[in-house]
Amino acid sequence: MRWAVVLAGGVGSRFWPLSTAARPKQLLPLAGARPLVVEAVARLLPLVPAERVLVVTSRALRSPLAAALPELPDANVLAEPFAASTAPALAWATARAAAADPAACVLSVHADWTVGDPDAFRAAADAALALAASAGALVTVGARATRPEIGYGYIVPGAELPGQGGAGAARRIARFVEKPDAAAAARLIAGGALWNTGMFAWTARRFREECARHTPELAGGFAALDRGDPTGFYAAVTPVSVDVGLFERTAAGAVVAGDFGWDDVGSWAALPRVRAADGAGNVVVGDAHAVDASGCVVWSEAGATVVDGVRDLVVVRTRGITLVTTRERAPRLKELLARLPPALAGGPGAADGGGAAAGEPA
Amino acid sequence: MRWAVVLAGGVGSRFWPLSTAARPKQLLPLAGARPLVVEAVARLLPLVPAERVLVVTSRALRSPLAAALPELPDANVLAEPFAASTAPALAWATARAAAADPAACVLSVHADWTVGDPDAFRAAADAALALAASAGALVTVGARATRPEIGYGYIVPGAELPGQGGAGAARRIARFVEKPDAAAAARLIAGGALWNTGMFAWTARRFREECARHTPELAGGFAALDRGDPTGFYAAVTPVSVDVGLFERTAAGAVVAGDFGWDDVGSWAALPRVRAADGAGNVVVGDAHAVDASGCVVWSEAGATVVDGVRDLVVVRTRGITLVTTRERAPRLKELLARLPPALAGGPGAADGGGAAAGEPA
Repeated sequence: MRWAVVLAGGVGSRFWPLSTAARPKQLLPLAGARPLVVEAVARLLPLVPAERVLVVTSRALRSPLAAALPELPDANVLAEPFAASTAPALAWATARAAAADPAACVLSVHADWTVGDPDAFRAAADAALALAASAGALVTVGARATRPEIGYGYIVPGAELPGQGGAGAARRIARFVEKPDAAAAARLIAGGALWNTGMFAWTARRFREECARHTPELAGGFAALDRGDPTGFYAAVTPVSVDVGLFERTAAGAVVAGDFGWDDVGSWAALPRVRAADGAGNVVVGDAHAVDASGCVVWSEAGATVVDGVRDLVVVRTRGITLVTTRERAPRLKELLARLPPALAGGPGAADGGGAAAGEPA
Repeated sequence: MRWAVVLAGGVGSRFWPLSTAARPKQLLPLAGARPLVVEAVARLLPLVPAERVLVVTSRALRSPLAAALPELPDANVLAEPFAASTAPALAWATARAAAADPAACVLSVHADWTVGDPDAFRAAADAALALAASAGALVTVGARATRPEIGYGYIVPGAELPGQGGAGAARRIARFVEKPDAAAAARLIAGGALWNTGMFAWTARRFREECARHTPELAGGFAALDRGDPTGFYAAVTPVSVDVGLFERTAAGAVVAGDFGWDDVGSWAALPRVRAADGAGNVVVGDAHAVDASGCVVWSEAGATVVDGVRDLVVVRTRGITLVTTRERAPRLKELLARLPPALAGGPGAADGGGAAAGEPA
């Protein structure tokens, strides 16, 4: 049967001061009225029933996530003892699915994306799951790139998979390219490269076989997983992403292209891509007012915010902090946080983005 | 004896959102650690003892002002039944002084200025009081102009007063000029014009005589004042400023020049003139942090404010509101308030600046 795994462990600081350790990006309603993780699960439910949707997060976030997702069985929210990048998280969740359903076919997504076209998303997910089940492939879904984004990873597709011809054809993976510069990104796109969404599909059986062969970082932990001891598993593994620890090593990888308005909403500067703007290009959320202003992102909680006669600013008011920066600098918010007093920046855990939490790219 | 009157009725909105009806400009610590009105009274005390310092304000502000000025006898804080510009306020306070001391010589100042050199201020006040007592003049103190400010009124001095020769000579008043454009202001300054501070000195006797002759707006109310009935007085007067209602009509006017770092702190944009800036020209007050920013005014209450990579902005955070505007637009804050929802702008009373309150220029 089909299962879904939602990686929701991120503790990113890219939406400071709104995002905090207790309310990271996936719990924020950045793209609409509901938190991103709630949207992510709602987007999956037409494809996979709630009892087969697993969420992987940190111990600190287990409780707020379970509260935000009342439709999921409580036991489906898995709390990692510590963040160890994506491969251990996905290995644990995949093993959980296999324990209940040895024929499980697993789709994995991140909790903190947005998707402009949910139907097209589900069509791509469906194609990936079908390919994983029929061809025994480890499938990654690449998103059609619409701009030379330097903050993303890219997948360069290779040869067509035998017997999978047609317009939506699956291909082998030629290589991954992480965060190219703008010129290289433009060349990649011209050559047919796709954005690496971090969305995968595999059967539990095939995933275990390929990990056993290629991922020594996990190998020592599988016995613990098989006796239902995730703490023992995490004690035995070395943190590694599934991209590096598996996809870059296996010959079973495949890529399916999708065009579903994918956006990883990487910073405040991304908000105009995922929210409607006023006539002057301002995105205002909450009790926010833009007067003679253009191109601004204004997010106001715990009070009102008025921006007057300014352009291309990001202004965020929270209960304790107001941030005023530029759209240009917003993607480099971590550099700012490193220069602020730790008490203000939210402490080292928030300021360094949490490193290798499940749900964060490696 | 010498008396002092502090006009403290202003309900100005030029420091919105920090200034509110309950905490207008004179109650804000804009230039230092203490509210402007506390500084104004402290500045006078070496010249006039506390029991002869009168404060005129509104009924709404009587209580917070009395609390802020514990060194004054409570009865010295006079609450007008309604704002009627400066002439009624000064007539009432002058009559109060005269009732206790028929030979009273009264100095009047505003509660919401700053003074860079208090000793020079007291020297100018002393000269004005001495001239008022000796020559029977209605004296205004003009401040040496240091820039072609378009927000101020100007005094053009006339002929020297007989028998008052010397460097600090008192002169007659040739004319008043209200808010010239920059070119006209520069010409006025080149011709020796002074800023009209709204600081006056007169004997109670002479003030009454000249008002009786020139100020019909007040004449019908004096009987009420003389029987100790300020409510009856206000019911009988027509609002008028002392500049228009008396100085522009009398032949007894004189002007004394002073050079004491006077500033009326007319808007957020004025803060860099009255507060120390950091090396990049940012004035930060409260839990405020400027990173790669220059020329900004950042005032943060009820939480922290971080400005990053911006220039020449005014950012004000209060318990309920954050304002982001430019230094260039800050002097025209009323235009912004008129475009905001009344509940946000503080209601019509705040949004229109309160018109003719005591302590506001006419």
